[in-house]
Amino acid sequence: MFYLLLLTLVAPAYSQTATWIWYPGDWEISLSNKMQNRRTERGVFFPVFWKIDNHYVLMDFHKVFNLSQPEEIKLYVEGEYNVKIDGKAFEGSPSTITVPAGKHKINIKVFNQQQVPAIFVQGKTIVSDNSWLVTFEDKEWIDETGKTSDISATKWLNAGSSNLNDPTKLPSTYSLPVKPEPALRIERKPQALVADFGKETFGFLKLHGVKGKGKLTAYYGESKEEALSLEHSETFDRLTIAATTKQDTVISLSKAFRFVNLVHEAGISVDSVSVLYEYADISDKGGFRCSDEELNRIYDVSKYTLHLTTREFFIDGIKRDRWVWSGDAYQSYLMNYYLTNDNETVKRTMYALRGKDPVTAHINTIMDYTFYWFLGIYDYYLYSGDKSFIAQNYDRMQSLMEYCLGRRNKEGLMEGLPGDWVFIDWATGLSKAGAVSFEQLLLCRSLETMAICAGLADDAAGAARYTKEADLLKKKLFDYYWNENKQALVHSRVNGAQTDNVTRYANMFSILFGYFSEQQKQAVKKSVLLNNNIQKITTPYMRFYELEALCAMGEQVYVLKEMKDYWGGMLKLGATSFWEEYNPDKTGAEHYAMYGREFGKSLCHSWGASPLYLLGKYYLGVKPLEPGYSQYEIAPQLGGLQWMEGKVPTPDGTIELAVTTSQIKVTGATGTGVLKFSSRSKPVCKEGIVSDKGNGHYELTIEKGKTYTVKYKL
Amino acid sequence: MFYLLLLTLVAPAYSQTATWIWYPGDWEISLSNKMQNRRTERGVFFPVFWKIDNHYVLMDFHKVFNLSQPEEIKLYVEGEYNVKIDGKAFEGSPSTITVPAGKHKINIKVFNQQQVPAIFVQGKTIVSDNSWLVTFEDKEWIDETGKTSDISATKWLNAGSSNLNDPTKLPSTYSLPVKPEPALRIERKPQALVADFGKETFGFLKLHGVKGKGKLTAYYGESKEEALSLEHSETFDRLTIAATTKQDTVISLSKAFRFVNLVHEAGISVDSVSVLYEYADISDKGGFRCSDEELNRIYDVSKYTLHLTTREFFIDGIKRDRWVWSGDAYQSYLMNYYLTNDNETVKRTMYALRGKDPVTAHINTIMDYTFYWFLGIYDYYLYSGDKSFIAQNYDRMQSLMEYCLGRRNKEGLMEGLPGDWVFIDWATGLSKAGAVSFEQLLLCRSLETMAICAGLADDAAGAARYTKEADLLKKKLFDYYWNENKQALVHSRVNGAQTDNVTRYANMFSILFGYFSEQQKQAVKKSVLLNNNIQKITTPYMRFYELEALCAMGEQVYVLKEMKDYWGGMLKLGATSFWEEYNPDKTGAEHYAMYGREFGKSLCHSWGASPLYLLGKYYLGVKPLEPGYSQYEIAPQLGGLQWMEGKVPTPDGTIELAVTTSQIKVTGATGTGVLKFSSRSKPVCKEGIVSDKGNGHYELTIEKGKTYTVKYKL
Repeated sequence: MFYLLLLTLVAPAYSQTATWIWYPGDWEISLSNKMQNRRTERGVFFPVFWKIDNHYVLMDFHKVFNLSQPEEIKLYVEGEYNVKIDGKAFEGSPSTITVPAGKHKINIKVFNQQQVPAIFVQGKTIVSDNSWLVTFEDKEWIDETGKTSDISATKWLNAGSSNLNDPTKLPSTYSLPVKPEPALRIERKPQALVADFGKETFGFLKLHGVKGKGKLTAYYGESKEEALSLEHSETFDRLTIAATTKQDTVISLSKAFRFVNLVHEAGISVDSVSVLYEYADISDKGGFRCSDEELNRIYDVSKYTLHLTTREFFIDGIKRDRWVWSGDAYQSYLMNYYLTNDNETVKRTMYALRGKDPVTAHINTIMDYTFYWFLGIYDYYLYSGDKSFIAQNYDRMQSLMEYCLGRRNKEGLMEGLPGDWVFIDWATGLSKAGAVSFEQLLLCRSLETMAICAGLADDAAGAARYTKEADLLKKKLFDYYWNENKQALVHSRVNGAQTDNVTRYANMFSILFGYFSEQQKQAVKKSVLLNNNIQKITTPYMRFYELEALCAMGEQVYVLKEMKDYWGGMLKLGATSFWEEYNPDKTGAEHYAMYGREFGKSLCHSWGASPLYLLGKYYLGVKPLEPGYSQYEIAPQLGGLQWMEGKVPTPDGTIELAVTTSQIKVTGATGTGVLKFSSRSKPVCKEGIVSDKGNGHYELTIEKGKTYTVKYKL
Repeated sequence: MFYLLLLTLVAPAYSQTATWIWYPGDWEISLSNKMQNRRTERGVFFPVFWKIDNHYVLMDFHKVFNLSQPEEIKLYVEGEYNVKIDGKAFEGSPSTITVPAGKHKINIKVFNQQQVPAIFVQGKTIVSDNSWLVTFEDKEWIDETGKTSDISATKWLNAGSSNLNDPTKLPSTYSLPVKPEPALRIERKPQALVADFGKETFGFLKLHGVKGKGKLTAYYGESKEEALSLEHSETFDRLTIAATTKQDTVISLSKAFRFVNLVHEAGISVDSVSVLYEYADISDKGGFRCSDEELNRIYDVSKYTLHLTTREFFIDGIKRDRWVWSGDAYQSYLMNYYLTNDNETVKRTMYALRGKDPVTAHINTIMDYTFYWFLGIYDYYLYSGDKSFIAQNYDRMQSLMEYCLGRRNKEGLMEGLPGDWVFIDWATGLSKAGAVSFEQLLLCRSLETMAICAGLADDAAGAARYTKEADLLKKKLFDYYWNENKQALVHSRVNGAQTDNVTRYANMFSILFGYFSEQQKQAVKKSVLLNNNIQKITTPYMRFYELEALCAMGEQVYVLKEMKDYWGGMLKLGATSFWEEYNPDKTGAEHYAMYGREFGKSLCHSWGASPLYLLGKYYLGVKPLEPGYSQYEIAPQLGGLQWMEGKVPTPDGTIELAVTTSQIKVTGATGTGVLKFSSRSKPVCKEGIVSDKGNGHYELTIEKGKTYTVKYKL
């Protein structure tokens, strides 16, 4: 009794968490515009080549509150505003108002041409959060008789927010945190200083004790060769120094590098350099450790790679592009679900990628990247169970899908039209002509996603239509592309006829999407996946799906070896983060070249971090079966390891797992899990009943929060 | 020879006029956002209730030049930018570059989140103007082999501009000019000062010699009653004064007023007040003078009214709304063609009204106001002959029309859906139920406009489709709404049946649009226009069209009397600008009330200035018959006046006219005119051949720049 009383007494004055709110997507789009326009290439501002959108400049926020007593609330607003209670406005733009007791509607209308209109409301029970409703057109007018207009057609969405909980920090000033980190080694030369930070890093270069007069250039390098190449380093900053006493200078545009080469005119001296390391402050919730030290190192460097590329948004690479690419981000989402499980960055990235209506091009101008956006929605819902994000985005999903459906050819297939980039992969000689099977496959999955979301958004007609379109397309996929002789989906259809070419893309995705029959799957594994005559994949981007498809077919032993070869190969070359592309046949600085440029390759690329996902989903074997892990599966596969242990985050708790060849210890989180394993002896578990599924397969139901130890024999 | 040489020597270094350029419509939209959000109502910020749009944040500008010698150009850019010649970028963001001789493409890519991306380029022959092309998505990417993407689908428009020719004044800082004007009379009271500026004015109030400490409120009034009503004046500004010595203060938000009532705490003193009169610096090109002094005064006050409401845009009223309303602006366009003929304000207003895709509501949320936008396009093309504006806007015209066509009912008629405001007019008890005939009429004319514009935009399929839709609708208009017994179009159709109600709207517009047969026209004149049993029109807004319809039917004598009664009535009450509404039955301060508010009425409303248009088009009788006055008509009608003279501007010169009962003197401008007149004697003209059209009607062809004197007998 006393304890409870104490709790009441020390409860904070503000029992609700207030947060900055805005029109959903607007702050995200605005922030991504800023981020994507920070790219430079050898001193040249290098913006994106697709349409980027802008915020709504006039916003109405409202919520109805029912107060037992009058309440004073504080208003923080980014923009010019008025505030009304029950339609009656206060004079001016007050920063504090009192809401009387009873049921009242608070409206705040904000105009801001330059920044995203945003509000932060702080009262005892009245706080701004995403339960507030927003619209950019309330259509509320009053005629000459004082009659209010019919606003039944006004569309309200829930406000957007992103845990910006400090009223004094305006959303427009948002930036990632930084922390100082020294250079590891500094090498001095005449009129130059070369610093090595020991590993790939990202941030604002700081020059310490700069003195003198003249020009100084900081050449950045992910490799030492790059930093030393004044002619070919991808990024640099030129400064004009005029300091009679020693001064510190921080360069205002962040860069990615391991090495920095400061080249300056005579008469300038620099004491040392450091970096203000800029990072997204997101904690790991997942983890993986095993008996193979090289694999542990691969996991750790993957983790660092994903952290470096997880910034305001999931970006591709930190040196060069620094743009938000849908195909790259899609892989980051998946890795994220097994490492940090940070919904905010996923949602933020999807808002930024989708932008606004009207749709005038594919996302990033790339056809496949539009579809990955839909796939990202599918996975996000599966991993998070977050229905509200679907509801908030259903309009944007529909208009993007209409754009796609309106661009089909006579056969109802997606075929590149002028202005469309059919990307698929960086692969020599890859044909983009005609209707590529891979694109139809992605559209089909996108339509299935739309059908699910239509259901969630109570659009029964839409659900029926999208289901019908998906079914039709899936039939065409096999009618048009399946080749019985080749036992594979062919690459494309040109002028109404199958081409002769077989590539891995459509075949491996069909395995992942569950589109093949068991017989087809086994055939394709042999005819395509493990067939060396089919053009090999060289990018970690598509290796991601290739290895996943093999894992999905139980080839964990093979994939483990591949991982050690490919990612282990980069580690042996001294990689401190994983690369955009790796070809073991190359030597020395050859590895750094790409796009016809000596140092064009990104040495820290998000798609290089896929082991995070593969190890979590296919070795620890954890995956949701129903949205938000209400039902999930744990099917551990050691793949030749002696032991492994790890954690997989869910929306409600973490699944923990420790597996040896004779014991599986598992702790459940959220919903209901099923542990699936094989054993050569009858397994024993004190905490639950193992059911025998025949042929040495067993299952055990895992309940929330409980720990199970299973003795078995691999 | 010497003279020519001299000309060459003194020719300015910059032979071309450089101007700031941007994406067409973006600067206009941004400026209208600023303007429309300057409305306040008794100290409350009062923004619009419809969607307002925002600029594209990333813009590519380019043009190809062919230089005989290298040329240095200066770059002024609002935003972060890069500049490329033939695809190769300069390092940094240079403010001066040299373009080599030969054929070269200059690209400037600008990012600006907060303001409209804009450039100003100044060279000897290379200048920025609207011959540059712009896009918000160039879709130009380069693959791993260095191959450039297919950008054939990239949509380029001509750059937008608006005669902002000073490189040092950024487009975002644009503002109208001001000039100081003193108060005419100042009346002092204890703790108060009442100033009378002698006539309606607009601008920034300046307080001279303010001293003391405390609060001061400036109450504005279009009438003295309003300024004195602390409880009901529509606008005021509250200031906190803390001045130990006398200071001058300018209030930062402009206001409309004739009277100002400064009420302050004891201990504050104010020497005097003045206004920084803010105006659009546009000269009159048209004019009218006649034998009736009251009519001359009506013309002058109309002129002043239009000048006051012609600001950055054509707005409705200057005190209260200060918004851009399509129906109101439409009348300003028409008046403008007869007074200032300023294309810039017309185009700017139409860009602002249309905003951007997606279309989510009718313009200003009002169905009829969407259609007036199309009608404005029709008239603009007719009066200006400017095809390029059509080409620049054709996409936006199409998407707005699709929005309309997608909202028709089962019978293919426009009927108000939730969220639509069917306005028509402020009129007591006016039914908006069902499908109102007036709206179908406006849609029909809008479709005809689309058909014309489709032709100009080389969209033959579109032209055919819009023509077909217009024809179908015109047939329905008569099938569904014409009532043979009533000899009129009825007001509406509800649940598939004609209603019994006849109003003036559809009938008078059918006369103006030429939709009636001659027989119907005459019948409607009697059954509707001159029938006192049909609900009368009380707003100058609809009086505009009613009087125009009567003029179009030759009722100039009647209309002249009506003008003198209605507008003369306001003058007799001391009006210095014309009002939003006038009811001669009211007395004293009753005149100032509207919308249930004591001073709700606007005493300076653009739609009050319609005599400008009526006198120019139906008394001077000048109107274009073909776009841009390539063919035009002059059909003067004295309407009972002894004499009149005036000028009507065209895109190329001014038509001048002086008419008495015995002589018509006319000077032609541009194209070919035809003077039409009646005479009771055989007319004589030395400068041309008068052709006899029978029944006392005569015609004379007027050639460009020539003056003709016709002796005749009225």
